[in-house]
Amino acid sequence: MNTDYTFQGWLGKDAKSVEGNMVWEEFQPKPFTETDVDIKITHCGVCGTDIHTLRSGWSPSDYPCCVGHEIVGTAIRVGRAVSNIKVGDRVGVGAQCSSCLKSDCEECSAGLEHHCPRFVATYNAHHTDRSRTYGGYADYWRGPGAFVVKIPDGLTSAEAAPLLCAGITVFSPLKNNGAGPGKRIGIIGVGGLGHLGILFSKALRCDRVVAISRTGIKKHDAQAMGADRYIATDEEKDWAKSHSRTLDLIVSTVSSPKMPLGSYLKLLRTNGQFIQVGAPEDVLPSFSAFSLIAKGTKIGGSQIGSPKDIAYMLDFAAKEDVRPWVQERSLKEANQAIVDMEEGRARYRYVLVNEANAKL
Amino acid sequence: MNTDYTFQGWLGKDAKSVEGNMVWEEFQPKPFTETDVDIKITHCGVCGTDIHTLRSGWSPSDYPCCVGHEIVGTAIRVGRAVSNIKVGDRVGVGAQCSSCLKSDCEECSAGLEHHCPRFVATYNAHHTDRSRTYGGYADYWRGPGAFVVKIPDGLTSAEAAPLLCAGITVFSPLKNNGAGPGKRIGIIGVGGLGHLGILFSKALRCDRVVAISRTGIKKHDAQAMGADRYIATDEEKDWAKSHSRTLDLIVSTVSSPKMPLGSYLKLLRTNGQFIQVGAPEDVLPSFSAFSLIAKGTKIGGSQIGSPKDIAYMLDFAAKEDVRPWVQERSLKEANQAIVDMEEGRARYRYVLVNEANAKL
Repeated sequence: MNTDYTFQGWLGKDAKSVEGNMVWEEFQPKPFTETDVDIKITHCGVCGTDIHTLRSGWSPSDYPCCVGHEIVGTAIRVGRAVSNIKVGDRVGVGAQCSSCLKSDCEECSAGLEHHCPRFVATYNAHHTDRSRTYGGYADYWRGPGAFVVKIPDGLTSAEAAPLLCAGITVFSPLKNNGAGPGKRIGIIGVGGLGHLGILFSKALRCDRVVAISRTGIKKHDAQAMGADRYIATDEEKDWAKSHSRTLDLIVSTVSSPKMPLGSYLKLLRTNGQFIQVGAPEDVLPSFSAFSLIAKGTKIGGSQIGSPKDIAYMLDFAAKEDVRPWVQERSLKEANQAIVDMEEGRARYRYVLVNEANAKL
Repeated sequence: MNTDYTFQGWLGKDAKSVEGNMVWEEFQPKPFTETDVDIKITHCGVCGTDIHTLRSGWSPSDYPCCVGHEIVGTAIRVGRAVSNIKVGDRVGVGAQCSSCLKSDCEECSAGLEHHCPRFVATYNAHHTDRSRTYGGYADYWRGPGAFVVKIPDGLTSAEAAPLLCAGITVFSPLKNNGAGPGKRIGIIGVGGLGHLGILFSKALRCDRVVAISRTGIKKHDAQAMGADRYIATDEEKDWAKSHSRTLDLIVSTVSSPKMPLGSYLKLLRTNGQFIQVGAPEDVLPSFSAFSLIAKGTKIGGSQIGSPKDIAYMLDFAAKEDVRPWVQERSLKEANQAIVDMEEGRARYRYVLVNEANAKL
């Protein structure tokens, strides 16, 4: 097989890269080992984390960064120690590319690789060999095969891409907290993550799905996705009161530290749960312990899923006809896509397409 | 039966009553109805809520207040519509004395009376007939029989009293969140609630019980209660780091809004839970959503339990030989007991004894 290729991608050099200043350059991937897979990238979703990272929003980023962790393409080189993938497979990789995978690791041995203390992110991190990790705004990706999953036939590559991070991010808290018949679900934020939260909640046959957004501009779309009700918090007076005690589970995909957390908690029924998946760049707003104690509610966090969880979610999406709303953009337009994404224009997920690779 | 008695008790008249200024006076109980029970009080535990209420710590109290909601005594008058209690029974009532009990109430119909929106507290509240509720620092108590439970023979009255509020407050979050074999439990605060948390965790056969306190002065006692480890957060340097990821479940009985919540969360293992049962007089400290997301942890609240939960807990305590550490004080000394409690002198629960009634 031809392994005579160089790795090139869009590199952010500093915090201003988020303003449309990524540059297309060659980069040096990790040295290939027999546990690795090389992917010829055809599609990569544009995730909020890409933006947080490019602008050093959570913490100082380790530039140069090649972001993108909703990567789909073709496996073109597969190490001998990789058993789950073969050359030619249509595959994907999400936000995590490595963990310790040791048998004495509490998390890895329990199928919780995504909570392993040795979690390695798909970009802006370092492999165990200390080489940098680079993401999917690029033509090739290289990393451990253990975190590469096969894409089921029922999904197009453009649909599969956002599922690899955004999809599993909302699917896990729904699945792990009982979303299904008899349950009423609230999804805060109708964006890349939130729209998938609505689609998955419907596919899980929840009794009621309530989309919660600041304004009404996404109401029609949310209903088309399957939302039974819609709350526009900036427009509906006393919404927290009029909708109080109506939801069993809320998945919050918003990442503003100014969110009205106390009001959201009012929407929960007794023993309800509020799961935060969007990570604000600041602490969460303060709230009174009474709001948790009086109704026996919980606030939790959830972070992606294990490779096995991701494979399960992809199969579920293919089987239940969960179709992400994606807008394809040329990889060449990555800078503009980032700017548009930051301005809230995505409806509801941009997927960068590497036309040259996609043709093959 | 003789129903020719008046109701007298220690009344707080204003926020200064917490400083030892409650006065012994007659008060007017609710009009007796056929769903009510009168209890001749022999014992009443001194709970932190009594102090919060006397000083209007959570919100302005509705003076005059007769506090006390760990009430044990003898049923001396039982309404015809009460089926669970008969005259002469040794009975108790905890922090809740009423709820709507309607069949269309989501909570009451599901055995979650303690989360009913029509929750009526045993004192500083109003019955559905608008009459005031009065607690157990008194010689008699009157209220709905549905919230009166029988005390099992295996427990003394002084032991049973603190179980009615403090006991169920810590037992419920342990029981409802999987405390048992294979689990490591942390109990924050070694006081009235916390010492019962240690005793119950051991009785539930948890793998490890860790007592967490600011100083080491309660270490010996905590070990005698069954704690396997002890963390003194003011004295042990880098405790959050050295004990990180060691606990599956933490029950926090402390009510200081200054508690180091972020450090406590570090103690949790992946998918661990932190349940707050002590209600601070202010909001909880802010914390980063990352601390929940990275490990998939949750922060929850828990509030007492239903009458059925309380009956189960009392039977469990009797069967498993859970013996609260109580110090009996004369009801006559109620003012001093409150002052001593506020100064942290209780080891670990004061129980007021009405000697005159207890002799009968």
